[in-house]
Amino acid sequence: MKSIEVCLSPALFEYKTTTHDYIVIIIDVLRATTSFCAAFDSGAQSVIPVAGLEELLDYKNKGYPTAAERGGKKVDFADFGNSPVVFLQSNLTGKDLVYSTTNGTQAVEIAKSSGNIAAAAFVNLISVSQWLVNQQRNVVILCSGWKNTFSLEDTLCAGALVESLEKSRKFIRICDASETAFTLWQASKNNLQEVVKKASHYQRLVKLGQVIDLMHCFQLNTSKAVPVWDGYKFRNLAV
Amino acid sequence: MKSIEVCLSPALFEYKTTTHDYIVIIIDVLRATTSFCAAFDSGAQSVIPVAGLEELLDYKNKGYPTAAERGGKKVDFADFGNSPVVFLQSNLTGKDLVYSTTNGTQAVEIAKSSGNIAAAAFVNLISVSQWLVNQQRNVVILCSGWKNTFSLEDTLCAGALVESLEKSRKFIRICDASETAFTLWQASKNNLQEVVKKASHYQRLVKLGQVIDLMHCFQLNTSKAVPVWDGYKFRNLAV
Repeated sequence: MKSIEVCLSPALFEYKTTTHDYIVIIIDVLRATTSFCAAFDSGAQSVIPVAGLEELLDYKNKGYPTAAERGGKKVDFADFGNSPVVFLQSNLTGKDLVYSTTNGTQAVEIAKSSGNIAAAAFVNLISVSQWLVNQQRNVVILCSGWKNTFSLEDTLCAGALVESLEKSRKFIRICDASETAFTLWQASKNNLQEVVKKASHYQRLVKLGQVIDLMHCFQLNTSKAVPVWDGYKFRNLAV
Repeated sequence: MKSIEVCLSPALFEYKTTTHDYIVIIIDVLRATTSFCAAFDSGAQSVIPVAGLEELLDYKNKGYPTAAERGGKKVDFADFGNSPVVFLQSNLTGKDLVYSTTNGTQAVEIAKSSGNIAAAAFVNLISVSQWLVNQQRNVVILCSGWKNTFSLEDTLCAGALVESLEKSRKFIRICDASETAFTLWQASKNNLQEVVKKASHYQRLVKLGQVIDLMHCFQLNTSKAVPVWDGYKFRNLAV
């Protein structure tokens, strides 16, 4: 039996208790990890997360396609913002997409020390869950949140992943945060579209006019992507 | 209308968004804030929280009664551990009790900068809630947790306080964490005694033989205490 621990904010990652043989699952439903899946679904060969915009500009100058968002808005010089729907409408076949966001890529930076990272969202819940069952390792779910604060939508997705993993009977939740994420998901899953409207980042994106993205990000299992970190970039290990 | 924000761990307090005219409500159900109430119910004149054991020893040498706990266990040289039931069985009339615990008094240290602190637990939920309604100020609920990790029982109590404050129609929850605490409480309140058994600190205290304390800490509204910080110590502002 393998364990599932949940970190409800990047600021809590250093206090996790799982120390051996674990994979970190990064969740940033709105919108980085949902967008990683969309980029792979549109043929991307890899997604290269970078924390800073200077590094991103270096890549752009070398000819890489770039995606960048700050505070929910597309960064001017980047080719793409953080919209999964725009990625789904693009052809990225064979491309290495360089990516920088407010929260999602910062979570990657924090989790890098662990060496083993994959990315999950509502859109690839079953795909990433099945992949994890085959890995037979402990799982630490890291909710990206918003500038280190707690986020409702990432915690709901963490709870959905806990449920999915436990159905395999090969995982068990071990901490108060995974218990809470699971309970929150149980209390919300039959009314998800309404519940997520209460999330502060949902409301922020509505104000920014990103309603189509919001509809996409809360669709379950529309993607088979399994974005897995290889030490430098995410590759799609979908079967 | 005043706002309610919840910080799910002391490590998240620095990321709170409430900046004006607020009172911090510290919650450490197991067991510091429950014990503060018990000390006042047994006649204590004040509770003086201190972070370190050296400082506590200085007070003891000056003749103050002392309470100290580390890792769930009573510190040898202290007069009391962190057991509310023991406080209820003691006579502390007119005493200034000096107090140091793993998490609760550290939360006080973190919140000190805000200047305005009170302490809540399940036992004094209605008392502290009524006091807050009269204050007409914004509320930041700080869950003490366990060594900066998230705790189920403190979050449940935060959710119960959110519910109680909102019933006055003078408060509204403003963040994803208060939304989650409220939802968790709604999903758990009819089965509280069973739900809290899943909490890691509950299980830790069971192993330490503190079962009577556990029964006490999840009784609602057995105390009228309203422990309020005066810049140096907690005093009981119960009406």
